Amino acid sequence: MDPTDTIVALATAQGQGALALIRVSGERSATIVQTCIAEKEKFEKAAERIVQLYTFIHPHNTRDVIDRITAIRYRAPRSYTSENMVEILCHGGDITPERILESLVDAGARYAGRGEFTKRAFLNGKTSLTKAEAVNRIIASTTAIQQQHALGHYLGGGEALVLIWDKEVRELLADIENAIEFSAEADEDRNKTAERIETRVEKLKTGIMQELKKRRYLKEVEHGIDVAIVGPVNAGKSSLFNLIMGYERSIVDTEEGTTRDFISEQRKIDGIKVRFIDTAGIRNASKCVEKKGIEKSREFIKKSRIVLWVSAANEQTTEEEKLLQTTEQQKVVGIINKIDLAHSTEKQELFCNKKIPYLEISAIKREEKERVELFIRNCIYDIYNRIEYDCVIGNKRQEKIIEEILKEVEAIKRSVNSEEIAAEHCKNIIGKIEEFTGKITTEEILNKIFDEFCIGK
Amino acid sequence: MDPTDTIVALATAQGQGALALIRVSGERSATIVQTCIAEKEKFEKAAERIVQLYTFIHPHNTRDVIDRITAIRYRAPRSYTSENMVEILCHGGDITPERILESLVDAGARYAGRGEFTKRAFLNGKTSLTKAEAVNRIIASTTAIQQQHALGHYLGGGEALVLIWDKEVRELLADIENAIEFSAEADEDRNKTAERIETRVEKLKTGIMQELKKRRYLKEVEHGIDVAIVGPVNAGKSSLFNLIMGYERSIVDTEEGTTRDFISEQRKIDGIKVRFIDTAGIRNASKCVEKKGIEKSREFIKKSRIVLWVSAANEQTTEEEKLLQTTEQQKVVGIINKIDLAHSTEKQELFCNKKIPYLEISAIKREEKERVELFIRNCIYDIYNRIEYDCVIGNKRQEKIIEEILKEVEAIKRSVNSEEIAAEHCKNIIGKIEEFTGKITTEEILNKIFDEFCIGK
Repeated sequence: MDPTDTIVALATAQGQGALALIRVSGERSATIVQTCIAEKEKFEKAAERIVQLYTFIHPHNTRDVIDRITAIRYRAPRSYTSENMVEILCHGGDITPERILESLVDAGARYAGRGEFTKRAFLNGKTSLTKAEAVNRIIASTTAIQQQHALGHYLGGGEALVLIWDKEVRELLADIENAIEFSAEADEDRNKTAERIETRVEKLKTGIMQELKKRRYLKEVEHGIDVAIVGPVNAGKSSLFNLIMGYERSIVDTEEGTTRDFISEQRKIDGIKVRFIDTAGIRNASKCVEKKGIEKSREFIKKSRIVLWVSAANEQTTEEEKLLQTTEQQKVVGIINKIDLAHSTEKQELFCNKKIPYLEISAIKREEKERVELFIRNCIYDIYNRIEYDCVIGNKRQEKIIEEILKEVEAIKRSVNSEEIAAEHCKNIIGKIEEFTGKITTEEILNKIFDEFCIGK
Repeated sequence: MDPTDTIVALATAQGQGALALIRVSGERSATIVQTCIAEKEKFEKAAERIVQLYTFIHPHNTRDVIDRITAIRYRAPRSYTSENMVEILCHGGDITPERILESLVDAGARYAGRGEFTKRAFLNGKTSLTKAEAVNRIIASTTAIQQQHALGHYLGGGEALVLIWDKEVRELLADIENAIEFSAEADEDRNKTAERIETRVEKLKTGIMQELKKRRYLKEVEHGIDVAIVGPVNAGKSSLFNLIMGYERSIVDTEEGTTRDFISEQRKIDGIKVRFIDTAGIRNASKCVEKKGIEKSREFIKKSRIVLWVSAANEQTTEEEKLLQTTEQQKVVGIINKIDLAHSTEKQELFCNKKIPYLEISAIKREEKERVELFIRNCIYDIYNRIEYDCVIGNKRQEKIIEEILKEVEAIKRSVNSEEIAAEHCKNIIGKIEEFTGKITTEEILNKIFDEFCIGK
């Protein structure tokens, strides 16, 4: 791919839409677009960043009007790619954008490769590699959390900590090299240096491991969170489940212990995938099948991020209090159900005493849906706020490099008595950080990164 | 739908794309968008039609950065809808545009209904009804011809002729009303008037019928054109078919008359759907099956827009000349095949004498593909140029009205002796023309029209 070519691509999604945006980038952008514009003088004189209306014509058959468009000129280096650019906003659909692209290619442009616009932005120093990668992650996001995390990197977060590590490793390397040079020094001094090296290595290792842990945690949350609906038998768990889903899925019956198997459904709440699991009731089960179900319930409680503890206002509390005691309380939220049948200060106290937030409802009433949803949303927000979005690792490539760095750090730890080897590992880390930030890169690596992009980015 | 609301919608197609465009229209557009922008002063002071970079934040949680966007302000009436508007260009994908839309709704905007932007443009006198309808057709086009035809209407074509009809009908009505008023006049004068009325009605009818015919023809072409590959047995028709398709589909054999059944495949050439039909060879068939096949070939020749007459350079011409004679020659183009086996001035003359364009190839050579394609493309362009794109009828609604107008014209013809009834029919036509152009319309009709639009248009 010749980097001096002028490239074109559809920048918006393909398909039925009112409008579509086409990007042109490269030295000859304006010249090429001008060939396809009827109002040549107007386009030539157009100021930067101004939206103007034009008639888009075929470059070789000027009577063939292809569309009425608006176009915006950008002059290097004040553009996305840092090159001359033109953005064309045309009618959407399958045909118009295609005809405009074909015309621009006829006029001398070339179809852009995957991620070629962002690649040019990177090569022209307009963006860092991790920022460029973040762009792709923003687009590919399927949840709000993913998008927020990616956006954080796009706005420049992420790299800062890596640069601190870089500084730390360089200081560490200086210490080690010092130790090599002055190996004949007094034992006391040598011990001091060794101690300092050890502290540095330990600090680095802790920091890196923390990021890898955050990454694993974020991946977990990005994948979706589980909300288990638990509580005593016949408290109305399935009614609550149905209320949330908006349709009948669990079999609801007044007979105790109706739900034997586990029903789960996913819903998106504020962009987060939430899987609701309707579990069997918890009690001292006698029947074998029921017992197995309850064991499974306990498993779900353990794995879930939130436990909706459903309790019926018209039931006794004694047994329940004991059961609730055995559940990890920080993730429990209470639902006092069946308030149409009874009022229970006893149940309110059950949750109040344990500082568990709760909501009083009548799950059989459809109009309660909104209140329940708001309550759950707030519970999720609580977790949200506990999540740290500033993890340095944004994708697999970055994760792999950080894992490699961790291995190098561990290797340094193992080579305390062989400074030369330790110094080598330090240098490896410095190299890997440069690979991470894209300071050192190869055409091959870049191609691999940008091949994951979509066309037009 | 309250027309004073400020509406928002995604204007580009949904899905994976580098960028997405969101439209905001209504009195409070700028105020609402400003709530979601960190750089409030910059946005407030931004000139019209200037692209500026901003940080898009949640309106109630200003620390929640949703995206880095560019936004363009438009001040009424210099916008698509003729209202205050803002266009927001954000990152594409599933999440970012959704979060931005949600934020704008949180800030006081409302999700737009189908076609609501264009409907507002129409209601504010920014566009005519037929132009508005053309917008939708441009987007929904599946072929270049459809797009070109729709664009013609978008640029203002189409309505002109209808307005001429309007003028003609009004003149006709004046004549008829004259005839009523002066019914006591001399026979000679009455005859003159009757004659003039007849001429007018006839002219109107011819004009309308021509447009309905064009509409039928355009629908046919929009649907796709047929290209029949015909010629003597063993001339290499299937080899040519395979060459065009780029893969083996017909069974090619040196035995005469291998292709008994009909194989067809569709390909898009310059945006036009072209169905290629590989027919059985034409000759005085003796075998029954073969004969049936040849009859079918003749049928395809009749129905096709283009006939590729394949002739082998190494075969006799006598029989072929007779057969070619019986084919509608204006749609025939010649392919002299097997030039790797022989050179034939006789074949060249066969086509030259009949002024049939031809191409000499060796269909078994893959490298010939490009030449053949270019040749076919040029043949299609020839038809293209013969098509009249200025048909007034652009969609079903318009077609229905024009058909109703035709019926009214015919009713006038039938009421030559009853001027009062003829006058009524004239008035009906005037009403229908107003319905066509959207001069007279009801909320119900408008809703029906704009409900066919996509959201964001």
